[in-house]
Amino acid sequence: MKIRVNEQFALLEENYLFSETGHRTRAYQAAHPEKKVLRLGIGDVTLPLAPCVAEAMRKAVDEMGVKETFRGYSPEYGYDFLREKLAARYRRFGVRLPAEEIYVSDGAKSDVGSIVDILGENEVLLPDPVYPVYRDSNLMCGRRVRFLPAGRENDFLPMPEGLLREPYVIYLCSPNNPTGAAYSRAQLRAWVDFALESGSLIVFDAAYEAFVEGDFPHSIYEIPGAEACAVEIGSFSKTAGFTGVRCAWAVFPEALESRGVGLGALWRRRQATRFNGVGYIVQRGAEAALSEAGERQCMEAVAYYKRNVRLLSQVLVERGIYHTGGLHSPYLWFACPEGERSWEFFDRLLATVQVVGTPGAGFGKRGEGYFRLTGFSDRASIEEAAERLKTVL
Amino acid sequence: MKIRVNEQFALLEENYLFSETGHRTRAYQAAHPEKKVLRLGIGDVTLPLAPCVAEAMRKAVDEMGVKETFRGYSPEYGYDFLREKLAARYRRFGVRLPAEEIYVSDGAKSDVGSIVDILGENEVLLPDPVYPVYRDSNLMCGRRVRFLPAGRENDFLPMPEGLLREPYVIYLCSPNNPTGAAYSRAQLRAWVDFALESGSLIVFDAAYEAFVEGDFPHSIYEIPGAEACAVEIGSFSKTAGFTGVRCAWAVFPEALESRGVGLGALWRRRQATRFNGVGYIVQRGAEAALSEAGERQCMEAVAYYKRNVRLLSQVLVERGIYHTGGLHSPYLWFACPEGERSWEFFDRLLATVQVVGTPGAGFGKRGEGYFRLTGFSDRASIEEAAERLKTVL
Repeated sequence: MKIRVNEQFALLEENYLFSETGHRTRAYQAAHPEKKVLRLGIGDVTLPLAPCVAEAMRKAVDEMGVKETFRGYSPEYGYDFLREKLAARYRRFGVRLPAEEIYVSDGAKSDVGSIVDILGENEVLLPDPVYPVYRDSNLMCGRRVRFLPAGRENDFLPMPEGLLREPYVIYLCSPNNPTGAAYSRAQLRAWVDFALESGSLIVFDAAYEAFVEGDFPHSIYEIPGAEACAVEIGSFSKTAGFTGVRCAWAVFPEALESRGVGLGALWRRRQATRFNGVGYIVQRGAEAALSEAGERQCMEAVAYYKRNVRLLSQVLVERGIYHTGGLHSPYLWFACPEGERSWEFFDRLLATVQVVGTPGAGFGKRGEGYFRLTGFSDRASIEEAAERLKTVL
Repeated sequence: MKIRVNEQFALLEENYLFSETGHRTRAYQAAHPEKKVLRLGIGDVTLPLAPCVAEAMRKAVDEMGVKETFRGYSPEYGYDFLREKLAARYRRFGVRLPAEEIYVSDGAKSDVGSIVDILGENEVLLPDPVYPVYRDSNLMCGRRVRFLPAGRENDFLPMPEGLLREPYVIYLCSPNNPTGAAYSRAQLRAWVDFALESGSLIVFDAAYEAFVEGDFPHSIYEIPGAEACAVEIGSFSKTAGFTGVRCAWAVFPEALESRGVGLGALWRRRQATRFNGVGYIVQRGAEAALSEAGERQCMEAVAYYKRNVRLLSQVLVERGIYHTGGLHSPYLWFACPEGERSWEFFDRLLATVQVVGTPGAGFGKRGEGYFRLTGFSDRASIEEAAERLKTVL
């Protein structure tokens, strides 16, 4: 053919991170079939759906199998029953959002990617290290991307100090993937103030909010003024174990406008044109996850993962190793032993104690020399991994 | 805020079609609560999921509720069990596609919209009348769109005659939404020849292929050479009643390359970055729809809708009214009575016999003076609608 393709794709680096860790792990296992490899690399849940969620989905399947209760196309932005439950959930954080400002989708990754469609040319600010989707979705459509260095100097929580008061699109993820670091209320306050002063938009990824503790914000809308400068993306993936079910939401407050154009209106037009809603069965499952029983059952799973990651982080505390996460997060992010690079440490950990993690360098330049482990595993594997880590750290 | 938004959105016309028909219908019903309104406007299925599909989904929910069989993230491009079933289905049309060239998604509408992300600036050719998503997804990213007039002169099946031999992106939908017209094998052959000679890409929407009869092609890949010039999008929505379940697929043959860049590679990168797969339960349901029992049960539903639309089209045949569709399609597209415009006919049909359809003008300029009815309803309503239509046509 002679048509033009999107030339920006040629500028993307291939993201080999998880294929490379998988490849090295399989090669090791093939060479050492007698060794028990413990996989704490991928950020995917391991516990089953909560009983009341499965029950609600079973019931919804039954409804879909009978003419009288069958449902065709879902409402484009989600069923009211789910949007209202989400609005009620926000009220528990003191956030009052009308249900119509909450847009149900098939995943936080889809929403993060789709946001670029409604924006124009702006300078995009991303933390480094970063969840690669923020970077690649912007590079794919030719946006200028600038990195905010994260590191030990700011505990992997970059702040707006030093930025010109210009309008940016700023991606924040708290609790953070991959570092597990969570912004305090005062820190988010500073970001919202900066965005309001500079006319910037914050894209706030709250996919891990269920893991926060104490006074740390669950939602950026806990900060007054955020409704005029921030989009928020939430997800059932890590909270309700929906990575293989697919349900998330984006919040576009009506107060969110730039140069007279409402972002909510753009989002509605985008979604109505390029998306066709989330299936009924999935939305009934999500609704159940927000019921009283559902929240209790889901929070048990979250507590299980948190206990897991605490068991791992205790090893680092004992050894006096610098780390973030382990609290407010299913992730633990730590400095590799003196002078060791991320991939060297990956290989050594695999070869000596058969623990698989994720090299920090895979998330950006500033991730070099760091390493990520997750609490998404069963307790016995975590306890064994903790014991093994003690022998090499 | 002072960020730049996508200014192309301001150039889009608001698509009020179904909100306007819904609005007028509700207003009429409110004023005439005693009248029984028959709704044959929206292209949404009405029959429940096939028994074996519901059974497979119930089983998958059970698996997701148990630790040992729980599944997290799905493979990015679909489970092999589903991709292989789809490849086997193509073989029945004489089309040999490796399963790896078939990419599972949450809907044909999503795929149609996502394709623009991997393409550059090209002239885009669309039939008029047209499924609005082709037009709006291209306008949203600033593409030049040109319409191929469809009408009585070509039986609503525009052909490449008269086009310069230049590389275009050409959207074809057969059987067509909204006109129900289906390209013959010779006509598709002419399009594939044109695309190969001109270096064009055909985006072939086969969402309604289950409705074709006789020697009409189900897939554009039945035409030799299409694998080097065409993407195909298929869907479970109308075949298996999945409008409220969400599952579809796109085919990117490896032979598909432009100026040395493989489109399949671009699609994989796009989907891996901006999409996170289709849920396990949904994919098990889709797999069941492709089983022997599933195909039989699904084709019974298709036959039911086809019988419905034939009952409507018989009225037009008896009255000698020009129409397309009614065969190969759940849609029936016909000329409004002499001199009557689409919306006038809509109002008159609603007011006099309480039948709701869709004004052809809502699908493009060349739809003016035409009207669409669908067979997606129950038999009794269709029979009554046919009787009522006789009194006004």
